[in-house]
Amino acid sequence: MADQTVLGPGATIGILGGGQLGRMLALAAARLGLKCHIYSPKGDNPAFEVAHMATPAGYGDTAALTAFAASVDVATYEFENVPLPAASLVEGHVPLYPPPAALEVSQHRVNEKTFFNDAGIATAGWLHAQTADELVELTAGRLGSHGAGGIMKTCRLGYDGKGQARVSSSDEVRRAWDELGGQDLIFEWLVPFAREVSVIAARAATGAVEVFDIAENIHENGILRTSQVPARISPSARRRAHEIATLALEKLDYIGVIAIELFVVETDAGEQLLVNEFAPRVHNSGHWSEAACAVSQFEQHIRAIAGWPLGDPRRHSDAEMHNLLGEEVNDWQGLAGQSDAVVHIYGKAACRPGRKMGHVTHLSPLRELSER
Amino acid sequence: MADQTVLGPGATIGILGGGQLGRMLALAAARLGLKCHIYSPKGDNPAFEVAHMATPAGYGDTAALTAFAASVDVATYEFENVPLPAASLVEGHVPLYPPPAALEVSQHRVNEKTFFNDAGIATAGWLHAQTADELVELTAGRLGSHGAGGIMKTCRLGYDGKGQARVSSSDEVRRAWDELGGQDLIFEWLVPFAREVSVIAARAATGAVEVFDIAENIHENGILRTSQVPARISPSARRRAHEIATLALEKLDYIGVIAIELFVVETDAGEQLLVNEFAPRVHNSGHWSEAACAVSQFEQHIRAIAGWPLGDPRRHSDAEMHNLLGEEVNDWQGLAGQSDAVVHIYGKAACRPGRKMGHVTHLSPLRELSER
Repeated sequence: MADQTVLGPGATIGILGGGQLGRMLALAAARLGLKCHIYSPKGDNPAFEVAHMATPAGYGDTAALTAFAASVDVATYEFENVPLPAASLVEGHVPLYPPPAALEVSQHRVNEKTFFNDAGIATAGWLHAQTADELVELTAGRLGSHGAGGIMKTCRLGYDGKGQARVSSSDEVRRAWDELGGQDLIFEWLVPFAREVSVIAARAATGAVEVFDIAENIHENGILRTSQVPARISPSARRRAHEIATLALEKLDYIGVIAIELFVVETDAGEQLLVNEFAPRVHNSGHWSEAACAVSQFEQHIRAIAGWPLGDPRRHSDAEMHNLLGEEVNDWQGLAGQSDAVVHIYGKAACRPGRKMGHVTHLSPLRELSER
Repeated sequence: MADQTVLGPGATIGILGGGQLGRMLALAAARLGLKCHIYSPKGDNPAFEVAHMATPAGYGDTAALTAFAASVDVATYEFENVPLPAASLVEGHVPLYPPPAALEVSQHRVNEKTFFNDAGIATAGWLHAQTADELVELTAGRLGSHGAGGIMKTCRLGYDGKGQARVSSSDEVRRAWDELGGQDLIFEWLVPFAREVSVIAARAATGAVEVFDIAENIHENGILRTSQVPARISPSARRRAHEIATLALEKLDYIGVIAIELFVVETDAGEQLLVNEFAPRVHNSGHWSEAACAVSQFEQHIRAIAGWPLGDPRRHSDAEMHNLLGEEVNDWQGLAGQSDAVVHIYGKAACRPGRKMGHVTHLSPLRELSER
């Protein structure tokens, strides 16, 4: 059990990253009477507009990082690609949650798979070759036969389907190898999953864990489109998802919110779960919680890092969240006119194709009770 | 039907007043991708911390007011005692909602009573005397007999029970007359009400009206302690409350959220409603809506003044809101640990006895459907 200062109203939370997740964290913190200081490289930083303080500076700017760390009571981050030296610098001055160890695991796909596999948690089968030739050899005779395929990914900095390529032959492996940069790539066997779900959970310094209801997710072109709660998932698979989340949180001595994406594979022995990846932060597939729970994932994260009691994550309504990508946000009037819709727009300055501009959550009465 | 510009994400809302209501309006606006500029005299302004821009300046500072008005796309206010000259100055540059006529009516209790009575809406019986002698004469023989009592109030600037005195004899009338400043006082006959309720409604520029569920309110020492939804109110009295709200909104050619406090008097002919007072703004007795509705009173107000479609005000949960006064806010850990509690703390710098520091809303499953 970690020792943790309890931060009351008036204290300041530092957030590395100024995107929509930082913005939603800052809005949640404000409701608890906490201030936020956002640190993010110059650019379109929607979180700046709702925060008490903002520092537009790069992650290599040690003077700015030091001043930031000195101005806050606890620090966190809204994206997993915060450079480790920046995280370490901040942590030298002020507690940083989730622990940088979680950053380290999540920033490299080999670390990530190894972390889960070592904990007895299944993932898709994967290979980490040093060269294209080696990968071709390792997959020879299996790729393409009986429709088996793989997906090659950069080990670092991939998101929303970027840095990925599907492959089903040795030729495609070689081509993808070059296109993806020729080094530090992981190969994953494609999984014949029935559904994708995610589990979002929080751990407090006391060791207490609370798990939000499992969301069922639909991706398009690698980008999340919708999350629906309740998910279609068997009670035993749901229990296993809770177990996976709790195991990961404990193994990382975690404080804050974690999100774990899972494949549901239907087998003769029932639904089996394979971890796809995790994020050491609040997650797009948990945005529904803002509309359907007394305490959202954003508030839950703030509570955890500020030493507050975790909130009850049970939902009061069923929910279906749709991302508003690119120009879809321009239909805000139509969306706001729907009677069951909770509209959230991120206030980004520039609208680009595929960019996450907002989301809308449709609420409906509970069909079954939320499980705790 | 008023002509109104529709303000999309990225536009700026100007808010006169920097207190907790301004803060909650700014947080609601942020969720819609709208920016806020708060204008408020120097001091403890919790709204400043969550807004895009803030101007700490007095209501007599015409240069600052002009610059404020020039920087926003629409303006509103979070308290009804904005000086009319300041409101007029702003309105000369940019639309100001609710209309300043509503400010004028609400800033003087005689105007307020006359407004409702002229619309055929009952209030407690009231008298507006010019001198103590005149008031003593007007109430002679009725005050004190059969337990009848009255309440004397300053016509302007009263709030949270300030500027009020109960009287039950001519001597008390004379004493209260002097204590309350000796001029511009109103006398109201005490009403033997069974309950106090409030109706919070919104009107859009299109003329559309949406009414939140009636809240049942408990005051202590003139300050709101709790609001509970659903209220104990008969269906016919509920319909009458909706009628009263709609009438008031239409008569004022109103845009935005209004709050009307009502006494419920039980008579042989059923429950009768008397208007106590109204506020041309979001209201403490509507804070529950933030936790129990898809669209809160704050978002509803922002939607109305920005030309968005009004949201569906039906609640998804029953709710009981408790104000956190003074040091009660220090129990935030205990409150946050309750499983049904939505905690909201205003981030005020100074904690004084009786000061509204936050509120907590307890949610429970719907016992009956919300009426629209």
